[in-house]
Amino acid sequence: MDTLSKKGKKDEEWISDFLTRGVKEIIEEDSVRSKFESGTILRVKHGVDPTTSKLHFGYWVVYRKLRKLQEMGHTIQLLIGTFTAQFGDPSGKTEVRKERTADEVREVAGDYVKQLAKILDIQKLTVYWNNDWFGNMKLGDFFRIANHFSVWRLLERDMFVERKKLGKEIKAPELMYPILQAYDSVELKSDLTIVGSDQLFNEIQARNLQRAYKEEPQDIIALEVLVGLDGEKKMSQSLGNVINIDDEPHEKFGKIMSMPDHLIPHYFELLTDKSYKEIEAMKEGMKRGELNPKDLKEELALVLITELDGKEAAESAQKHFQKVFREKGVPESMKSFVVDKPMILKEIVFKSGLSESMSEAQRFIEQGAVTLEGKVIEDWKLEVYKKESIILRVGKRKFIKLVFNK
Amino acid sequence: MDTLSKKGKKDEEWISDFLTRGVKEIIEEDSVRSKFESGTILRVKHGVDPTTSKLHFGYWVVYRKLRKLQEMGHTIQLLIGTFTAQFGDPSGKTEVRKERTADEVREVAGDYVKQLAKILDIQKLTVYWNNDWFGNMKLGDFFRIANHFSVWRLLERDMFVERKKLGKEIKAPELMYPILQAYDSVELKSDLTIVGSDQLFNEIQARNLQRAYKEEPQDIIALEVLVGLDGEKKMSQSLGNVINIDDEPHEKFGKIMSMPDHLIPHYFELLTDKSYKEIEAMKEGMKRGELNPKDLKEELALVLITELDGKEAAESAQKHFQKVFREKGVPESMKSFVVDKPMILKEIVFKSGLSESMSEAQRFIEQGAVTLEGKVIEDWKLEVYKKESIILRVGKRKFIKLVFNK
Repeated sequence: MDTLSKKGKKDEEWISDFLTRGVKEIIEEDSVRSKFESGTILRVKHGVDPTTSKLHFGYWVVYRKLRKLQEMGHTIQLLIGTFTAQFGDPSGKTEVRKERTADEVREVAGDYVKQLAKILDIQKLTVYWNNDWFGNMKLGDFFRIANHFSVWRLLERDMFVERKKLGKEIKAPELMYPILQAYDSVELKSDLTIVGSDQLFNEIQARNLQRAYKEEPQDIIALEVLVGLDGEKKMSQSLGNVINIDDEPHEKFGKIMSMPDHLIPHYFELLTDKSYKEIEAMKEGMKRGELNPKDLKEELALVLITELDGKEAAESAQKHFQKVFREKGVPESMKSFVVDKPMILKEIVFKSGLSESMSEAQRFIEQGAVTLEGKVIEDWKLEVYKKESIILRVGKRKFIKLVFNK
Repeated sequence: MDTLSKKGKKDEEWISDFLTRGVKEIIEEDSVRSKFESGTILRVKHGVDPTTSKLHFGYWVVYRKLRKLQEMGHTIQLLIGTFTAQFGDPSGKTEVRKERTADEVREVAGDYVKQLAKILDIQKLTVYWNNDWFGNMKLGDFFRIANHFSVWRLLERDMFVERKKLGKEIKAPELMYPILQAYDSVELKSDLTIVGSDQLFNEIQARNLQRAYKEEPQDIIALEVLVGLDGEKKMSQSLGNVINIDDEPHEKFGKIMSMPDHLIPHYFELLTDKSYKEIEAMKEGMKRGELNPKDLKEELALVLITELDGKEAAESAQKHFQKVFREKGVPESMKSFVVDKPMILKEIVFKSGLSESMSEAQRFIEQGAVTLEGKVIEDWKLEVYKKESIILRVGKRKFIKLVFNK
């Protein structure tokens, strides 16, 4: 078995921080420690089911840990669930997920690795696709795997318990999902896996299955789940409370500045190396009114964007933000939307991407959140078609230049 | 669509008897009637999972119905569960069934069709093996089928409810079993299925799946379950209370004569064409002491054995029985067992097939149920090795001739 080079061995303080920061539960901590101390190169599994094409900061919490393990010299096995995502893990969902085809999943996962390049050393990443083993698996072989699982045990997953309470459906493949995830660990001979705490149940199943296959059971580090921009719920694409890893730097900056103040220490803990002592001091400072949350958010934004996009991008995003928000001005550069025939205002707002739907566009306008050349327009039926370009603004931060085709 | 010849159309009385005799539940009765009346040739599915190599009279209840449908001109599709039996349906079981290989299942089902030749017209039987579609089915295709099933609905099966109550396991493949059985109906485009009532749940699932596949849902005739020789429990190989379709005629005769009296009308109803009126009169006659149950059992045995093995065999079995039991004599012909080296008595009892195990043999001997040349022997360690043949008897009905190699 390969062992780590000298630089791979970390001191007790480093290990302690690794096993504490953002960590909700470890199974088994003693085993992880002794694996780290032994100097053996570990096979670390991390699985992701492509449900949307964008990876958000919630994933980053896990990838930061993986990056640290990469720096130690361990092997990171990134498992992309090209089979499992066709049916979907019900994690945290109270509704049945829609079935997709393998092609749709592959398309969604299209540039995951490109997005990950901002965090992980992708040259050293081993990428696996679980359609490689499940795609051609015969039903009989699956049943032989499934025979290691008790239905009662599978039903103990908290989201199943919740579905039951709510009188909501579980489709048969959803119940089978943890079996697939468990088998992934067997296939990858996983020594350690790092997951969000909502995946803990499935990964514990994997330990049992690995034992049945005469493999050493993997250890599990289950991390805290990052709270989204709404300040309450898990960051999730479907809740719309996300910052994406490949959002434009100024977009990231704006979003970070808009988060509720109480999230600041949470983000510093999960997404930076700031020491617990400093984070505690920050909380105290805010409480006593000695520290301005706006300044802390700017610091946070600078640190995070620097890590993902570089120092220059971070500083430029900061300037952009200051110009728009502090000086109430408009940004120096903005996207254009070409209006090539007369349209009413709510249609323009929607089609230019400033609202999610026509009805949302109408609501924005009626609430007075929309301005044209700085003037609030409350008539959503207004037909807009001019000779020269004008600036459309929705809310505080969304600007677009309307260009009219003559 | 093919239609029945004139002889295939049955009158109202025939249909009523068919839909009543031994029938526990029909889904949907109106639909079955109108199918029968339309004259269309129906595709009738009957599935059997090979769990033991012998078919017993419990199966015969179903096969009699199928024979009648054959005589009408309908197509009987006998489905042998070469895939499903590898994992096992938990029907009526409170214990998890042992997993088997496809080869083991095929061996068990080895001469099902030969056994069925005593009841069905096997020239007109279409035999299917569900390993043909499940054996090479990919996991993804199964998941797409399974997506039509709710876990809560699957858990409503009575044996699952009972397992839960008893705190017993359900293995994941067992929960999936009804999905497979349902898909069999889709594959066979079943119009009607005839099953024991313990299969009703699974066949109802099939109706839903057929609808999802844009097929007409099959109708279901669920039959009463035949009570075994113990007079209490469902006839079942594992309970040892069975009469097998290919038992020797005199063995069948003896078993029928040994059944508790209260089963007589039950057997006449489920396994003969005796009218309900006659069966009621029979019950009354027994109750008033005007009819001797022994005579009724002899009548039953003659009818049943005649149907399976012919009149001659039935009458010869009757003579054999009368000789052995009425005259307390020994049968004229019996099997031989060659003893080619000195053996102790319990070993002979077991190896000659008169007991299921060595320990059972010992128990029989200690209880005084074993005689050699008419003399009770209670010493199981007795070494038996003689010059001439002698008769070994266990219980009332089991005889064997021991032949010693000199």
